[in-house]
Amino acid sequence: MSRDVAHRRLRAGIVGGGKGSLIGAVHRVAAELDGQADVVAGAMSTDPRRAAESAQAWFLDRSYASYEEMARQEAARPDGIDFVIIATPNHLHYPVAKAFLQQGIHVISDKPMSFSLQEAREEVELVEKSNLIFALTHNYTGYPMVRQARDLVRSGALGSIRKVIVEYIQDWLMEPQEQSGNKQAAWRTDPSKSGIAGCVGDIGTHAENLLEFITGLKIASLSADLSTFIPGRQLDDDANMLLRLENGAKGLLTCSQIAAGEENNLSIRVYGSRAGLEWHQMEPNSLLFKQPGQPAQIHRTNAPYTSESSQAATRLPGGHPEGFYEAFANIYKQAIADIRRVESGEKPLGGYPTVYDGLRGMHFITKAVESSQKGATWVNMND
Amino acid sequence: MSRDVAHRRLRAGIVGGGKGSLIGAVHRVAAELDGQADVVAGAMSTDPRRAAESAQAWFLDRSYASYEEMARQEAARPDGIDFVIIATPNHLHYPVAKAFLQQGIHVISDKPMSFSLQEAREEVELVEKSNLIFALTHNYTGYPMVRQARDLVRSGALGSIRKVIVEYIQDWLMEPQEQSGNKQAAWRTDPSKSGIAGCVGDIGTHAENLLEFITGLKIASLSADLSTFIPGRQLDDDANMLLRLENGAKGLLTCSQIAAGEENNLSIRVYGSRAGLEWHQMEPNSLLFKQPGQPAQIHRTNAPYTSESSQAATRLPGGHPEGFYEAFANIYKQAIADIRRVESGEKPLGGYPTVYDGLRGMHFITKAVESSQKGATWVNMND
Amino acid sequence: MSRDVAHRRLRAGIVGGGKGSLIGAVHRVAAELDGQADVVAGAMSTDPRRAAESAQAWFLDRSYASYEEMARQEAARPDGIDFVIIATPNHLHYPVAKAFLQQGIHVISDKPMSFSLQEAREEVELVEKSNLIFALTHNYTGYPMVRQARDLVRSGALGSIRKVIVEYIQDWLMEPQEQSGNKQAAWRTDPSKSGIAGCVGDIGTHAENLLEFITGLKIASLSADLSTFIPGRQLDDDANMLLRLENGAKGLLTCSQIAAGEENNLSIRVYGSRAGLEWHQMEPNSLLFKQPGQPAQIHRTNAPYTSESSQAATRLPGGHPEGFYEAFANIYKQAIADIRRVESGEKPLGGYPTVYDGLRGMHFITKAVESSQKGATWVNMND
Amino acid sequence: MSRDVAHRRLRAGIVGGGKGSLIGAVHRVAAELDGQADVVAGAMSTDPRRAAESAQAWFLDRSYASYEEMARQEAARPDGIDFVIIATPNHLHYPVAKAFLQQGIHVISDKPMSFSLQEAREEVELVEKSNLIFALTHNYTGYPMVRQARDLVRSGALGSIRKVIVEYIQDWLMEPQEQSGNKQAAWRTDPSKSGIAGCVGDIGTHAENLLEFITGLKIASLSADLSTFIPGRQLDDDANMLLRLENGAKGLLTCSQIAAGEENNLSIRVYGSRAGLEWHQMEPNSLLFKQPGQPAQIHRTNAPYTSESSQAATRLPGGHPEGFYEAFANIYKQAIADIRRVESGEKPLGGYPTVYDGLRGMHFITKAVESSQKGATWVNMND
Repeated sequence: MSRDVAHRRLRAGIVGGGKGSLIGAVHRVAAELDGQADVVAGAMSTDPRRAAESAQAWFLDRSYASYEEMARQEAARPDGIDFVIIATPNHLHYPVAKAFLQQGIHVISDKPMSFSLQEAREEVELVEKSNLIFALTHNYTGYPMVRQARDLVRSGALGSIRKVIVEYIQDWLMEPQEQSGNKQAAWRTDPSKSGIAGCVGDIGTHAENLLEFITGLKIASLSADLSTFIPGRQLDDDANMLLRLENGAKGLLTCSQIAAGEENNLSIRVYGSRAGLEWHQMEPNSLLFKQPGQPAQIHRTNAPYTSESSQAATRLPGGHPEGFYEAFANIYKQAIADIRRVESGEKPLGGYPTVYDGLRGMHFITKAVESSQKGATWVNMND
Repeated sequence: MSRDVAHRRLRAGIVGGGKGSLIGAVHRVAAELDGQADVVAGAMSTDPRRAAESAQAWFLDRSYASYEEMARQEAARPDGIDFVIIATPNHLHYPVAKAFLQQGIHVISDKPMSFSLQEAREEVELVEKSNLIFALTHNYTGYPMVRQARDLVRSGALGSIRKVIVEYIQDWLMEPQEQSGNKQAAWRTDPSKSGIAGCVGDIGTHAENLLEFITGLKIASLSADLSTFIPGRQLDDDANMLLRLENGAKGLLTCSQIAAGEENNLSIRVYGSRAGLEWHQMEPNSLLFKQPGQPAQIHRTNAPYTSESSQAATRLPGGHPEGFYEAFANIYKQAIADIRRVESGEKPLGGYPTVYDGLRGMHFITKAVESSQKGATWVNMND
Repeated sequence: MSRDVAHRRLRAGIVGGGKGSLIGAVHRVAAELDGQADVVAGAMSTDPRRAAESAQAWFLDRSYASYEEMARQEAARPDGIDFVIIATPNHLHYPVAKAFLQQGIHVISDKPMSFSLQEAREEVELVEKSNLIFALTHNYTGYPMVRQARDLVRSGALGSIRKVIVEYIQDWLMEPQEQSGNKQAAWRTDPSKSGIAGCVGDIGTHAENLLEFITGLKIASLSADLSTFIPGRQLDDDANMLLRLENGAKGLLTCSQIAAGEENNLSIRVYGSRAGLEWHQMEPNSLLFKQPGQPAQIHRTNAPYTSESSQAATRLPGGHPEGFYEAFANIYKQAIADIRRVESGEKPLGGYPTVYDGLRGMHFITKAVESSQKGATWVNMND
Repeated sequence: MSRDVAHRRLRAGIVGGGKGSLIGAVHRVAAELDGQADVVAGAMSTDPRRAAESAQAWFLDRSYASYEEMARQEAARPDGIDFVIIATPNHLHYPVAKAFLQQGIHVISDKPMSFSLQEAREEVELVEKSNLIFALTHNYTGYPMVRQARDLVRSGALGSIRKVIVEYIQDWLMEPQEQSGNKQAAWRTDPSKSGIAGCVGDIGTHAENLLEFITGLKIASLSADLSTFIPGRQLDDDANMLLRLENGAKGLLTCSQIAAGEENNLSIRVYGSRAGLEWHQMEPNSLLFKQPGQPAQIHRTNAPYTSESSQAATRLPGGHPEGFYEAFANIYKQAIADIRRVESGEKPLGGYPTVYDGLRGMHFITKAVESSQKGATWVNMND
């Protein structure tokens, strides 16, 4: 199937993301922000009434009771959706992606990519066999200053990387919220929906992805100490890890959802043989670039000295704060551009996290849990 | 005319904002962000070719060669626009608003409201006689922490206000950019398009509006020292002002477009008999609340302790940065909700800057220029 | 008289600074910090018992009941003091200085230099006629990053100065503390001890001095709006001023002792035709240097790229915070070095605030009060 | 021996700290800052000429060619020193301490306490058998906000501690400075002078001490990954560690001297079941206290709400920055007060790091190196 997408906004459908979901609305805003796509269809909840209400609240043209039905019917319509957005709990990520990929519909999926490493491997195969775009919303790579950081490393400005410290700490699960009706907390702490990891899967994978994105280096081995501080909770809510990267660099990764007083504190520091850098998600428009013996520099979103790919990820002049939605929309922006390309017979250009990042994340989860179960001993990421 | 707007997104048209315009794209994103409106028509440039190309780039349904034609034709269509967005240089603000108001179309206009104080007075009359919503995009009042600041003042937490310092400083006109083809710089420094003030009109009015919004107090008199640092420039590019507020408080206002190294640095500090507060636009999700003898508090966007109106201006959990677009969209969100109300026969609720704020801004410009021309002497705002 | 000071610490005496005084202890620590002087004698209070107790608490060798007696006796001793420290309320600054200068003893005095402009003029004459060192503790010029700021301006890195914003705001007088036994508050709000100004004299002069020190420019005229917010208080507790500098630059100066929640918030921003800078006393080891279109630079105390005079004002490697005492001690360090020079027949080198800075400060106080009394109109500093 | 110290400054001697030493001058300033002691004697270098010059530069009364001679002679003098300051490389810490303790002279020593764990054990015995004060300059515990942090934990404000992140990162050894004549670098990277660890001993012990000081918890086990990034260097210059504390809390400790662009970046974050806190040595006068769902609080040096022991560690009103020297001097202040007590027959009160902290530090070094040598596996601190 080929679609004529040149002179119109793309049409998107969404699975999950019904009322009460945070991330559903984020996906809608991000998908539509640049005026390149409209969400027009949805299977927004397994509860039909909630699905319908959610679709109505968003003025969607079409609402479905199940994603399977949506995949079939949209594929059959002349004005069917061009891509699907997956905003469900983890255990549905792969089945939903599979259903739409098999109907020839592009996929933009939330992370982690799947429920298990096995599923992730199947997903890679499925995407490889298709001619479809698959983007994974490791949205933090969409920040202009994250791209600037990556490009500084790539340019050699840091020299060879020696040390990395990456953190993602929150406090929203520091009480047993899953026991008092918080749906977001409930599925994330439920092994049947979240998978083998809690915090490590939910936000640890963002930290891992950010580290590998910025440094361009892979984690070679790790020693992970996972903890569950809240009694009765079945999955980890905190983790500390020692890392060794493929080039000999050393690292620390910590993630937590019980760090009292922390909102959504993702940060990274990278130190090389020539310079270091530091970025904080909560003040995302500044990036510290530190050269020994010289004044630290504050790189800023959309400044003229920033890299081309960093500037391409901005929409406003310096000093007009761009935030979480805009970074998220940058993943969509590039994925949508690639959908347009593929539909026009061109080669996709990438730039956004793909199925391989998703596989990498599932490896990371698997190895971190394995290490912790063995007493926080070293495990090789490639075994 | 009455429209049935209950079960659909509103339809918007835009005047101005063609290719190369920053603010046009900002209005589109802000108007559409919450999924409550789509921009479908435009008269985006006085240059017909540029108008057409701009409309095509945005996938607009209808493109017009002039705003007058657009006002007439849209008013006549059954699926015509519900409101118009005015994103032109200042001298067109009023004529465009008038054209659409007279056709019964709601207006969301950029600031300053008009070219002259006289126009502003006429505009107030026109809006008062209509049953239409008029919103002015003093967008900085849309930040959640600005609303929190206002609500803290209202709650009495600061006691009686004694001292205010408000600043809006940039550097983008520190060279004669208007002489080298920068269109944004050209019209802003051209008295025939910008009006009697440059920097004071462009950003000084934001500072004035922010001060009066947060404190709930009016400037009673001012002493303004306007400067033009760039040779050949016809309008002010910097101003310092002493203020006296109606309650006896004292203030400082400074605005500049020649402050080297400053991006878009709007900030305000307010000191009362019980506490003080401090907010910086470039890190907009934090508000400092300072009580003597107690630890300063960092209030944060969407935290549970923030006011209802502040929380209503957020879409994301704490720690997920909301920025310039989201604040701008908050003006649209409330204005669109009021358009829905008015179209359903309900009373509008307000919450966004109105024609009266616009009139106030034109007073401010007029008096600041008058004071400066008299040697930076005191002038009464009410004279 | 000439003293052999080459192989020993200098001997200092102190007038004022008895128990309960903040600034007395600051002077002692600052004088002794570099191991170049010891405080050995004092006339620390007009209350003889408190004077004796204060001297004993400091293990002083000699305690006097009056400064006149101390001046006479110390001048007569072979092991008498080399210099006197003046840490009294303002009205005694000049009489004490005069007494010691007339005995051939060097003077390091707190600011403002005198009670009145007339006294300041006499003091200049007295010092000029002597061969003695007179240093005034405008201590904020002692910070390494303030010297770096001055040296950046001097080097031309900022281009020609266009705009300056200097602030010194506190909250410690936001209640009528002078009515409840606070001695520090009592004399500072008493015209018979403090002079014609309150806040403007106490901290406004620091702001004025800092501005002129860093920019190397003199204030040419000012329009000052002084306020007294606390009922019953006789002197100003807040002031806002418009400034015009001798080179055509414009400025704002604000000082306040009623700014709720502010501790000791002195800051300065300077904008030139090429770059800007920003410094905050409460985080004194960083200086922002901002060039348009380039990353802002964070200059840091004792970094290798800082100026010679800045490095001479530090004692520790970067990252080891140097604070208020150390900056204060830098005034002493240079003044003591000059005392050694003068006593060895060499020429003094300066580098610290002198009697001319003191005269300038008294001019500033006088003109600010005059302007405010005339309705916050412009007055010329040179009239 | 008993000394009459009531009505005079104490007399101190110093071993090490000759010209070119940073830490020698720090000890002098810290010892003398509060006017409670004077350094009067020294054995400042093993090079006699340098020893004499150094002593002369400080105007010392007595200079010795060796510490052994100094210990003997000072003990014999009626006006001999009351305490000795040890500011030598590590391998001399214990021998010097022993020499003075055996002469009945109090000791204030730099850290780590000794060259080996065995020496540390002997030193504990020696001190226990004496009636002498032994203070170890883990100076960072002297900061007012570190004491406030400890007191917040003690008060229960954080609940039970769950997670700790402590970092001490610098860049001053990121090049092989020890090969180009930097004496400070040379001995610190020389196993015959520094001991079995480099970075871990030099600054890792500060991090360990700070963690245990603030949390009141001991490290139960650790897994340490030490690295040497500079070719040819014999000791570690970077380390990452996983920690488990005695109460079940988890932790991360990292120290580095190759972290490009970092000056002296020591920081700690502690998260408990009720609240968290965060402190950064380079801006030491602020402490963040973070309670979930409430505004983060900025606690400030010498604010009225800070603890008694925190206020006792300050000398200036809020907003007057106190830095490295002042924190260092707080160790001296309490140790000197205890020397006065002991000499007056009173019981010492403590409050400063002691011989037991020193022993703890040597345990930490030993176990960290052991863990790393075993492949960064877990080792028990109590084995």
